[in-house]
Amino acid sequence: MERAIDTQLEELKKTILLMGGHVEKSLMLVTTALLAKDITMFGEVHEIEKRINEDHVLVDSMCMNVIAKQGPVAKDLRLILSVIKINNDLERMGDQAVNISYSGKDYLGRKPIVSQLGDIEKMSEIAGRMVKGSLDCFVRGDTEQAKKILMMDDEIDALKAKVFLDATAHMKLHPEDVEAGLDLILIARNLERLGDHATNIAEDVIFAITGRDVRHGGKFG
Amino acid sequence: MERAIDTQLEELKKTILLMGGHVEKSLMLVTTALLAKDITMFGEVHEIEKRINEDHVLVDSMCMNVIAKQGPVAKDLRLILSVIKINNDLERMGDQAVNISYSGKDYLGRKPIVSQLGDIEKMSEIAGRMVKGSLDCFVRGDTEQAKKILMMDDEIDALKAKVFLDATAHMKLHPEDVEAGLDLILIARNLERLGDHATNIAEDVIFAITGRDVRHGGKFG
Repeated sequence: MERAIDTQLEELKKTILLMGGHVEKSLMLVTTALLAKDITMFGEVHEIEKRINEDHVLVDSMCMNVIAKQGPVAKDLRLILSVIKINNDLERMGDQAVNISYSGKDYLGRKPIVSQLGDIEKMSEIAGRMVKGSLDCFVRGDTEQAKKILMMDDEIDALKAKVFLDATAHMKLHPEDVEAGLDLILIARNLERLGDHATNIAEDVIFAITGRDVRHGGKFG
Repeated sequence: MERAIDTQLEELKKTILLMGGHVEKSLMLVTTALLAKDITMFGEVHEIEKRINEDHVLVDSMCMNVIAKQGPVAKDLRLILSVIKINNDLERMGDQAVNISYSGKDYLGRKPIVSQLGDIEKMSEIAGRMVKGSLDCFVRGDTEQAKKILMMDDEIDALKAKVFLDATAHMKLHPEDVEAGLDLILIARNLERLGDHATNIAEDVIFAITGRDVRHGGKFG
């Protein structure tokens, strides 16, 4: 027999997935804009952020309603608490995409440092896979995939370190490019943070399913 | 008559305040280390972060217990949901302090750009007041003070913009100082983020007390 709470939890999942879809689109747009040197696309990122912010408020209020009306315990409660955190992470990801759009717009207004965009593209591609992957494992309740997300974060961190080093070396040799180098560093940092948030989501999924808190070096599997 | 939930909510408040105290101490230490050029103090920041991470896990598990056992509604539930978010923000603040310790240690190993530390000191001082203030308004349920925190965030943002501009100008004139300038920029960015998290806490306090969601431009007062 279906419980009333199941319908509400399904609604909650659907809403968070829609929100995640907005975040994915936002990340995709901001990177495409940067690589295609199409400043107009940055405006779309801001439009999507508004929707992400609306989702953010909506999801919190849905969670509060389910808790107040259904008095969930155990696995149901863990799922809702995870959604509250995932909601938070997705909203921050939306902010990161907007930050990238600002730095990206600045960067495109300057003399480009062409050699660097390859790494930014790779980082963005990994971040996109992490966002999508973390939401997939949330929907499917797949802790194995969640563990893979945690490992992808290392790749993105390594690329960020590379962008930092390369950009710094370039800035020292070409001080006239200091602003452009700084834009790239900030973009790389935002992409790294996007990856961190996807990692948080993966950790929350593991908690929702297994009840184990794997944050801060908690053991898993 | 005292309700069982009141005792648990008081415990929760106490724990989050202790955690907030750790965050305040961490921020104070990292700035003092930077200004006093005392690298050993950075180690203490890492010790405190471990405690903050323990608090983080503990608070979440306390929140889950209160919800599961007491079935809170209305104001009690709003308080608990706010604590879940405040917990998250405080943990991130601990991370920011650790980030500052890394950039700070790098910075102290280089030829200093003396003129810049004044603004970093001011930012840190405002961030400290914001952390303390946001926790005070949480304990006292003071929405007026919460509104003041939201305004202090503008000050810290303006200082960050100044550090960015000054450091960039310096780096262009003195390319040998590119790394040092970048350290300062990253420290300023982390302090700005600390301010953002204190702002989040203030918004959560307003929600806990009034039930109004003032995030993303929601109106208040």
